[in-house]
Amino acid sequence: MDKLVYLDNNATTRVDERVLEEMMPYFKEEYANPSSMYSFAKKASDAIKEARVKIRDFVNARDEKEIIFTSCGSESANTAIRGVLNYNKNKKHIITTKVEHPCVLNLYQTLEKQGYRVDYIGVNSNGELNIDELENAIDEDTALVSVMWANNETGVIFPIKKISEIIKSKNKDTKFFVDSVQVAGKIPIDVQENGIDLLGISGHKFHAPKGVGALYVNSKTMITPLIIGGHQERGKRAGTENTPYIVGIGKAAELAQDSLKYEMTEVKRLRDKLESNIVKKIYNARINTGVAERVPNTTNIGFEYIEGELILLHLSDMGICASSGSACTSGSLEPSHVLRAMNVPFTAIHGSIRWSLSRFTTEEEIDYVIDKLPEIIEKVTSISPYQKELQALKNLRQN
Amino acid sequence: MDKLVYLDNNATTRVDERVLEEMMPYFKEEYANPSSMYSFAKKASDAIKEARVKIRDFVNARDEKEIIFTSCGSESANTAIRGVLNYNKNKKHIITTKVEHPCVLNLYQTLEKQGYRVDYIGVNSNGELNIDELENAIDEDTALVSVMWANNETGVIFPIKKISEIIKSKNKDTKFFVDSVQVAGKIPIDVQENGIDLLGISGHKFHAPKGVGALYVNSKTMITPLIIGGHQERGKRAGTENTPYIVGIGKAAELAQDSLKYEMTEVKRLRDKLESNIVKKIYNARINTGVAERVPNTTNIGFEYIEGELILLHLSDMGICASSGSACTSGSLEPSHVLRAMNVPFTAIHGSIRWSLSRFTTEEEIDYVIDKLPEIIEKVTSISPYQKELQALKNLRQN
Repeated sequence: MDKLVYLDNNATTRVDERVLEEMMPYFKEEYANPSSMYSFAKKASDAIKEARVKIRDFVNARDEKEIIFTSCGSESANTAIRGVLNYNKNKKHIITTKVEHPCVLNLYQTLEKQGYRVDYIGVNSNGELNIDELENAIDEDTALVSVMWANNETGVIFPIKKISEIIKSKNKDTKFFVDSVQVAGKIPIDVQENGIDLLGISGHKFHAPKGVGALYVNSKTMITPLIIGGHQERGKRAGTENTPYIVGIGKAAELAQDSLKYEMTEVKRLRDKLESNIVKKIYNARINTGVAERVPNTTNIGFEYIEGELILLHLSDMGICASSGSACTSGSLEPSHVLRAMNVPFTAIHGSIRWSLSRFTTEEEIDYVIDKLPEIIEKVTSISPYQKELQALKNLRQN
Repeated sequence: MDKLVYLDNNATTRVDERVLEEMMPYFKEEYANPSSMYSFAKKASDAIKEARVKIRDFVNARDEKEIIFTSCGSESANTAIRGVLNYNKNKKHIITTKVEHPCVLNLYQTLEKQGYRVDYIGVNSNGELNIDELENAIDEDTALVSVMWANNETGVIFPIKKISEIIKSKNKDTKFFVDSVQVAGKIPIDVQENGIDLLGISGHKFHAPKGVGALYVNSKTMITPLIIGGHQERGKRAGTENTPYIVGIGKAAELAQDSLKYEMTEVKRLRDKLESNIVKKIYNARINTGVAERVPNTTNIGFEYIEGELILLHLSDMGICASSGSACTSGSLEPSHVLRAMNVPFTAIHGSIRWSLSRFTTEEEIDYVIDKLPEIIEKVTSISPYQKELQALKNLRQN
């Protein structure tokens, strides 16, 4: 296989071999429908029970009955958001942020067309949420506040506990959904400590396969199901249970919990090494998030006066995978809505690259990027039409 | 491992080893997000394209763009039904059957609460659909007719082509959704020949894993997405693509197509052997479907004056898996809604067992059931409170 340095773990991750191993029996001999009554189905149904307990512990829910398995993060978010709104049909106000994942923003745009009033809360230039703006937006009609725990493009962490306290103090009936896809496996998740009503995660962001997610819904929060049909998941999600993937996300959660310390120290060290070396070696590089608190694996760096797509192409040629935004919007030439919300200057926004590590990222890989990137940036910079501005920037940074 | 004779393939099937083998690289080295732009993602995105072509061919769609991958049969049905209704909000009438899969019936009951008018078409005592009743029900307001291709409990096939001709002659704007979960891999599927607008299948009923389905939506039929978010599946289904399972359902479809002849001859021979021997050896057994046309793998047999759950328990003890209805309703003591719609006499309805074979079913397994079943039925019959009726039945059958 050709050289591969995979630094796009916020798009998807490699399945951990131990996860795959745990899944395999449910593709092979233990293929029973977990809802069947004969004894052959017992192992499959027990395995699902066990996985549910693992996810309960991963998010520190009080009860495993509060965990619903889904087919992906998007399904978790759709179930949570539309489930709460359908159950509280008289309330028509929603609060979210300008920097949510595009899939959540698309859903809110659809809901606006259906008559909902949606407030999109902004962020500052570091990517931090305007908490006062959020507080002022809550009123008697607010059915739902929906805030991501950390941003997928910048890694910036939002103060979930503080937000939940504000919500409950202003309107105790407002439900709080936290899209936690980007924090699972990176920082500890505790739904009770943080006053969360609904929380969504996606397996493939923490080394389970693509195609499985989970949704926490606390016992005091009622939702209607998104996929209506059989009695599976206590009537909250129809469809024959995907035993192998449910087992997989359970195992992945267990492993992620065990790796949290490693993520927060060693992965962080590698991310910081990458970041500081890029900024040191490349004069037209800037960290887009300033001093904001971030998940340990992500950095978003703007390369001024050049085009991100061209950088990515050169990186791809050298076997390095990074991205300019979420994979869900890749192919679009629009600059990232997240960086726009942060008012990243136009000189840097088009050349911004997200680098996202995982526990499988090695020091050698980081050194390879630190070694190769300056020549790539120099090559791309040399054909920029902004040579005068670049020279001025160079002079400025060198002084 | 203990003895296992698995005759519950309408609940779920074993994953074919060739399917699993084809999936494996996408759990391992080819883990890229298929929507990513770098060259590392090309193999994953090409694999999805290839699978889409395989499903196109499997259902004989005109264009692979008409195929949407989903997470299960229930999601396919929810997407089709609610997608059509949301797109045609002014029409409030739906026609379906009394014997649809419980997951589809649950959805219709929810839609009734939301103001839809739903006609449930009945069946005769063989389980065949009352076509005249269906024809008479279609009016100007009919948005959707939704009919399963074959019933999951009885295997009875409905005349899809005839139904589509009736629909189009009475209201050319009415859309026709065919739940084909129970025919995929058992009889040929041809959406063009049969005039189908939307068709749903579920991978795990034809030896792909649980957790993947597909939905055909012809290019003239507009739907809204069920899971709203990213641009995946041409905007009709958000969520990072589940590459391994999509590859898996593609391969399973290819294998199912290749095995159709085997299903329709050899699997049918084994089913017929099982059926005729049971009826020959057990005086209180009756085939619940009479002469109706059925898929080749299914038989539904009523054992009079005894309880199905008790039969299943004894079968389970001997390693034989069968069921009394769909797995989605198992645990319920209500007699099957399908057999009730057929007016199966109360003497047989409680003791009715569905046996469903697959291409992995062996002659030896069928012989084992033929050998063991009479003693089980005799044991259960001996404790029935209906001894007088049983004696009368015995006398009747022996004459």
